[in-house]
Amino acid sequence: MKYMKGRVEDIKITYIGGGSRGWAWQLMSDLAKEEQLNGTVKLYDIDYEAARQNMMIGNGLKVREDVKSKWDYQAVATLDEALQDADFVIISILPGTFNEMASDVHAPEKYGIYQAVGDTVGPGGIVRGLRTVPMFIEIAKAIEANCPKAWVINYTNPMSLCVKTLYEAFPQIKAFGCCHEVFNTQELLAAALEDMEGIKDVTREEIKVNVLGINHFTWLDKASYKSIDLLPIYKAFVDKYYISGFEKEKAGHWMNDHFSSCNRVKFDLFKRYGLIAAAGDRHLAEFMQGNWYIENPAQVMEWKYSLTPVSWRKEDLKERLAKSERLVKGEEQFELVDTGEEGVRQIKAIVGLGDLVTNVNLPNKGQVANLPLGAVVETNAVFRRDEVVPVLAGSLPAGIASIAARHIANVQMTLEAAMEKDKEKAFLAFINDPLVSIGVEDASELLTEMLSNTASYLEGWEI
Amino acid sequence: MKYMKGRVEDIKITYIGGGSRGWAWQLMSDLAKEEQLNGTVKLYDIDYEAARQNMMIGNGLKVREDVKSKWDYQAVATLDEALQDADFVIISILPGTFNEMASDVHAPEKYGIYQAVGDTVGPGGIVRGLRTVPMFIEIAKAIEANCPKAWVINYTNPMSLCVKTLYEAFPQIKAFGCCHEVFNTQELLAAALEDMEGIKDVTREEIKVNVLGINHFTWLDKASYKSIDLLPIYKAFVDKYYISGFEKEKAGHWMNDHFSSCNRVKFDLFKRYGLIAAAGDRHLAEFMQGNWYIENPAQVMEWKYSLTPVSWRKEDLKERLAKSERLVKGEEQFELVDTGEEGVRQIKAIVGLGDLVTNVNLPNKGQVANLPLGAVVETNAVFRRDEVVPVLAGSLPAGIASIAARHIANVQMTLEAAMEKDKEKAFLAFINDPLVSIGVEDASELLTEMLSNTASYLEGWEI
Amino acid sequence: MKYMKGRVEDIKITYIGGGSRGWAWQLMSDLAKEEQLNGTVKLYDIDYEAARQNMMIGNGLKVREDVKSKWDYQAVATLDEALQDADFVIISILPGTFNEMASDVHAPEKYGIYQAVGDTVGPGGIVRGLRTVPMFIEIAKAIEANCPKAWVINYTNPMSLCVKTLYEAFPQIKAFGCCHEVFNTQELLAAALEDMEGIKDVTREEIKVNVLGINHFTWLDKASYKSIDLLPIYKAFVDKYYISGFEKEKAGHWMNDHFSSCNRVKFDLFKRYGLIAAAGDRHLAEFMQGNWYIENPAQVMEWKYSLTPVSWRKEDLKERLAKSERLVKGEEQFELVDTGEEGVRQIKAIVGLGDLVTNVNLPNKGQVANLPLGAVVETNAVFRRDEVVPVLAGSLPAGIASIAARHIANVQMTLEAAMEKDKEKAFLAFINDPLVSIGVEDASELLTEMLSNTASYLEGWEI
Amino acid sequence: MKYMKGRVEDIKITYIGGGSRGWAWQLMSDLAKEEQLNGTVKLYDIDYEAARQNMMIGNGLKVREDVKSKWDYQAVATLDEALQDADFVIISILPGTFNEMASDVHAPEKYGIYQAVGDTVGPGGIVRGLRTVPMFIEIAKAIEANCPKAWVINYTNPMSLCVKTLYEAFPQIKAFGCCHEVFNTQELLAAALEDMEGIKDVTREEIKVNVLGINHFTWLDKASYKSIDLLPIYKAFVDKYYISGFEKEKAGHWMNDHFSSCNRVKFDLFKRYGLIAAAGDRHLAEFMQGNWYIENPAQVMEWKYSLTPVSWRKEDLKERLAKSERLVKGEEQFELVDTGEEGVRQIKAIVGLGDLVTNVNLPNKGQVANLPLGAVVETNAVFRRDEVVPVLAGSLPAGIASIAARHIANVQMTLEAAMEKDKEKAFLAFINDPLVSIGVEDASELLTEMLSNTASYLEGWEI
Repeated sequence: MKYMKGRVEDIKITYIGGGSRGWAWQLMSDLAKEEQLNGTVKLYDIDYEAARQNMMIGNGLKVREDVKSKWDYQAVATLDEALQDADFVIISILPGTFNEMASDVHAPEKYGIYQAVGDTVGPGGIVRGLRTVPMFIEIAKAIEANCPKAWVINYTNPMSLCVKTLYEAFPQIKAFGCCHEVFNTQELLAAALEDMEGIKDVTREEIKVNVLGINHFTWLDKASYKSIDLLPIYKAFVDKYYISGFEKEKAGHWMNDHFSSCNRVKFDLFKRYGLIAAAGDRHLAEFMQGNWYIENPAQVMEWKYSLTPVSWRKEDLKERLAKSERLVKGEEQFELVDTGEEGVRQIKAIVGLGDLVTNVNLPNKGQVANLPLGAVVETNAVFRRDEVVPVLAGSLPAGIASIAARHIANVQMTLEAAMEKDKEKAFLAFINDPLVSIGVEDASELLTEMLSNTASYLEGWEI
Repeated sequence: MKYMKGRVEDIKITYIGGGSRGWAWQLMSDLAKEEQLNGTVKLYDIDYEAARQNMMIGNGLKVREDVKSKWDYQAVATLDEALQDADFVIISILPGTFNEMASDVHAPEKYGIYQAVGDTVGPGGIVRGLRTVPMFIEIAKAIEANCPKAWVINYTNPMSLCVKTLYEAFPQIKAFGCCHEVFNTQELLAAALEDMEGIKDVTREEIKVNVLGINHFTWLDKASYKSIDLLPIYKAFVDKYYISGFEKEKAGHWMNDHFSSCNRVKFDLFKRYGLIAAAGDRHLAEFMQGNWYIENPAQVMEWKYSLTPVSWRKEDLKERLAKSERLVKGEEQFELVDTGEEGVRQIKAIVGLGDLVTNVNLPNKGQVANLPLGAVVETNAVFRRDEVVPVLAGSLPAGIASIAARHIANVQMTLEAAMEKDKEKAFLAFINDPLVSIGVEDASELLTEMLSNTASYLEGWEI
Repeated sequence: MKYMKGRVEDIKITYIGGGSRGWAWQLMSDLAKEEQLNGTVKLYDIDYEAARQNMMIGNGLKVREDVKSKWDYQAVATLDEALQDADFVIISILPGTFNEMASDVHAPEKYGIYQAVGDTVGPGGIVRGLRTVPMFIEIAKAIEANCPKAWVINYTNPMSLCVKTLYEAFPQIKAFGCCHEVFNTQELLAAALEDMEGIKDVTREEIKVNVLGINHFTWLDKASYKSIDLLPIYKAFVDKYYISGFEKEKAGHWMNDHFSSCNRVKFDLFKRYGLIAAAGDRHLAEFMQGNWYIENPAQVMEWKYSLTPVSWRKEDLKERLAKSERLVKGEEQFELVDTGEEGVRQIKAIVGLGDLVTNVNLPNKGQVANLPLGAVVETNAVFRRDEVVPVLAGSLPAGIASIAARHIANVQMTLEAAMEKDKEKAFLAFINDPLVSIGVEDASELLTEMLSNTASYLEGWEI
Repeated sequence: MKYMKGRVEDIKITYIGGGSRGWAWQLMSDLAKEEQLNGTVKLYDIDYEAARQNMMIGNGLKVREDVKSKWDYQAVATLDEALQDADFVIISILPGTFNEMASDVHAPEKYGIYQAVGDTVGPGGIVRGLRTVPMFIEIAKAIEANCPKAWVINYTNPMSLCVKTLYEAFPQIKAFGCCHEVFNTQELLAAALEDMEGIKDVTREEIKVNVLGINHFTWLDKASYKSIDLLPIYKAFVDKYYISGFEKEKAGHWMNDHFSSCNRVKFDLFKRYGLIAAAGDRHLAEFMQGNWYIENPAQVMEWKYSLTPVSWRKEDLKERLAKSERLVKGEEQFELVDTGEEGVRQIKAIVGLGDLVTNVNLPNKGQVANLPLGAVVETNAVFRRDEVVPVLAGSLPAGIASIAARHIANVQMTLEAAMEKDKEKAFLAFINDPLVSIGVEDASELLTEMLSNTASYLEGWEI
């Protein structure tokens, strides 16, 4: 890297999962709009052709007038080559294919277990985790070998397990995990502020929050806009919309958009625990006892959110593949959008171009006082040159901490099971998940089936 | 107290719950057989007449030739008077009556929730806890006022909550909790040693164990007899008796004795977690997810233990009341038995007559490395003059620790709910219990019913 | 407080020590220049007349055109009245008079113990601490009674002990301690950047540092300007100026300015420990073994800093008293200056007008990983609406941590000695101070003399 | 090992430093008197001939009628061979020769620094430590390779550093350190009991103590004999003998026995800190600021203990060498003595033949609450089959903890310096030692001289 007059040039970014038709394009967009950075992005993907297409799309931006920084995109064939001397490593992969994900999400349904996402906790999250661990061990070891001082940003789920695995395999790694769920909750708070107080045009960055918890089960115990305490406002807002739910205009609608919801789960959790749950209802529902919010599709309807079928993801991917073709061929112009993601802002802060306080996932060194040390937790951190330093975010109420600790134990057991290729230990995590409230024998059968479905990623296991 | 030539005289013991027809008689028996101690036992009970009867029974022992130490028993009318200058305080009370206990145990059955004991965890344990907390706060405050340096031994359930409450109300208290469940497991290990290796006449004290966990969900990760590691022997023993179960001869039989079992729950837990669960199956079953061992009476039969109906306790009490009458009137002679309890041995060690290493319940200062600090945990401790010092017992496996932590959180929330008279907080504990896997609304109805049934002990609550 | 359109009005600030002719004027200046705040400052001082003079000076500002916010100053006769409903409490007092301070600083000289400041550690710091503790207990209790939710900013030395005492007396207090020594070090780093790299006009706020340690013995293990790592630059700078020392132009000169130095102590500490010491040389010298930097005046000259005689402070006070007279009488106009202090910026952040990351003194909850929990430590913290949240600053090297821990133990013992009025315990702190390397009997004599000199502030002691 | 009928046979003990003419003979004596153990002792020494002589002496015992167990002694030429499949490893070596020790102890004298032992702390202890670390790394690595499950008992000084190094090099090692200084203090307490209360014939094992601190700076905050609290008795005893000192009859006399003392240092520390220091005055004096007890030989005389000159050790060794010759040639019979050491009793407890509670040195996992985790501390532990479990011994008073923490930091820095061969870091430990109160330049010269004197053991260093 070279610093000169407020700009940093020659930054080397490696993107693992660089063939992605989602996150990778967002990064391209964010980089294109950033004046103060410049450098190379190496795209690595097990689907090399996908990476190559993205290289073409990315390099196509250089000539455009509306693009403020000229980045060089390179598709790279091997992980080691991709990581050589990287300054930043971004990890955003799909562990397995949508076929494995279909099993993760839908196989449990015949036992009456429903999942809205199935990528974090629940039977799906755990099995996905088991196949993800070896991939992340490989990545961590390659980072240790090729770029031990690089900053590593993970976007892959299950977030807590992915970050935990990176530190397990290479304890000196400078890795953290990022997720936009808290941002959406900040936007909900801005909407509440408008709805209840008539204060308009507040951006989500202006909503200051204290974040504590674990990814997708993250909580806010303080929230402010300027001098205004948002907790009492949110309380009144929840009372107003508890039954009907609340959905922002122009956002998708929960009945036809798998990522939308009416926030009723969030409102119910607030009434019970007194803190603002800061993740989408789809995620939150999966962390609680199964019969609270996700016992069956009818109950999901009642709570006004939706289960995302993997078939939809498959269809969506087809569309994105087609779009990729069009972009490569020049039949469609790449659109520079406001992604709302913070990756590029974080990179700027880490290279020294301005402080940033935002939420990240990191091993607990005390930032959440009543969750186990070493567990990956989500809190605010201060980003500065070559530093990401978490703040002491405080404690969760006992009721929430207990549920978070249960999932943290499952992350630990899943990691151990994956490293030891131990089905018995995997089962202890599986059966300890709140969604798996079925009998022990049924649970055992289900796990066996799910492991079989993902067996090609479980080398060396006896299933 | 006075020490002279290997004897300690003038010990002042206060027995809260001193009208009991069970534990109190055991103490009398143990004291009567102990040569090196002597003094006064003040019997306090909210049923003064019961205490008075026990006074008469106790004082009747003085004239007997087979009694080795002459203790003076006094029934005392007020708590303050009873505690004045005590050296030791024993707390063994029934919080409420068997009518409240009948609600604790049986009210949940109409929602399909069964409990074997209902005094520790589960809906019954939590509601019992709510009415116990104010009693223990009163006791702790009275100890602070009257005998702040006394050693306090608690036998009352729910153990963890009772001990936690004592320390909450009077942080300098020298209290610990005792329970004989680990002793029974030592006896099971001795039986296994005989069955598998033909080594006979081993006493439970000769079985050395490392104890860690929480009361009634206590675990052994090490067990030895002299130079012999008992873990592999127990493993083979479990394999041999996994299906049939194992019950010692001459012990009661699980089909007609509510306190007996075939240890099948214990064996199953060993196969799953690799550690020896050290409590009765009736207790262990209540700590796990409800559908493992206690989904319904048929499943209980399958696991070869039994649910204790409170009607049986009521009958049993009638018999004990009759026996008490006979003892008072001299129609029956008080029998000096081997109780197997350790209270008197602990008292001896604390007054300086010999070291003792045994298991107790104490706030966690690190003795269990991966359970929360401050939670009441059960481990070994060294007993010496004016000292009860826990050992560093190590860590539980993640799967067990996660379940223990869940119950620890419930103890914390139950305590807070009782102190704040907060039904909403009580519900958070209630719904977090593994046995309460019913829907949120049903759970809420059930809690309301159970609180109503125990309302006379919940002064100041809005139910 | 009232928030409206980016301004916060009706803030109630209480200034304890409000008769001060130094810090109080700086606050007036900073408030006068701040557009977004407005309210009342209650000035409380044991010298009521001094507070009244400052009231007149402060209120005189209201009419000036160059003043951006109109504050109402009130001199208040009692502490309780002053604190009633305060939003912010500023504590900046002189504990005792310069006569006591003269004893603190100069009495040890006849035993060969020299002190540059004598207000933090060393025999002077400890004895000053003993008389300060009861004052801070009184203040904390009054805050608890009158304004328990107020934010409390302490400027008084000994800083660590003062903040520790506040939390000891009222554990829920929202207090922190502020000190500008780190700011001076940031300015030194800016000077090094100009000297070594030719980069000019960098403000101290642009120098980003990771702060860890205890007040006046604070250290930086990271320092950056934009993308530039300042550690290697500082290393070269230290090598260049190690012998000569370095003093910024236009700053005072160490030979005639008691607050200036050539930073040679700082440079020597950097060479030995590899971290940047972030306090004035006068303070740093007092924390180390006495024969390193402060064995006698000649050695002090060699290290190119100076000992501040209390006689100078007395003279200086006279000048400030005269200036106060002139200001009150209108013979001199109050000058609005750039104070470089952060108090008002912190207040702005705490009322919600913009985030701030800066260094403060707070009880350790893990922000310095290898200093004792509960000790008052200095690190960065994030200031937001109603929040001051420390960051996890990391660990000190063992050599520095050992010296810091020694002073932390002394703070603890001084606090206990003051609360228990226990001369023996005070002596254990005294003799444990690195400057008190004299024999035990001499030390005992010296302590007795110093306590006698300050006896009017040690009510209830046997000296 | 084989267990049969209360005996354990075929125990394999490896003795590193097996050529010793002190500790090795004590072990032989203790083993010879022990009926329940049997096996092989492999003697390894860098002086093979010395080991061979001890082999002959040891094997000579087999034929004697007064010997209760027949042990096979083997001199072994290599460390790996010696450790192969060991059950127990005893480490008792002299790191370097008495020539190096002469430098450790006496080189500092020309700077006015006196040392009584010079093997634990002080300039001598630190330099001895620097040459010991590589030896213990080698030993730990060999244990990991040859007998990773062996129990390792260290007797070598500096104890804390030796044990720390073993765990640093092989974290899973089952090592602990033993020292008899606490035993001597128990005997002093028995003597006090006789002197003050007329209670005779109390053995040191009957004196129950709570031990906490670091080796040679160990403290007792509780001490009992049966029901008797020894603290008030010791207080009166200290008052009685504070000036004169106290020396047991028939023990050596401090004026002509380098290991004896009048306990005046111990008494003075008790008066200052309120706890019983549990190590010899010679050791204790070295831990405190140099001018307290060991400023010069005259002050040492005043405190009635003595400095041990290394010349005496050299003479003593000559005598022991001559004795060894006589024993080998059969000119003198090996005497079976009461050594008072606990090694064999510890081994018995670890193989399962009876519980033992005694003091050991182990890494801190919370057993001393206010010393750093990971530091090697000395407390009681429970010894059982394959277990050495420390008790939670509590906290030291702040004054003592501060001094202990200073030496703990020095152990840490010495370890790091030795591993990194870093003279600058070694100097940071050196100058932080309370005995090194000389100027920085003198200290630097002294360290250089001392390192040069021990240079043959500091391979790879630049001195």
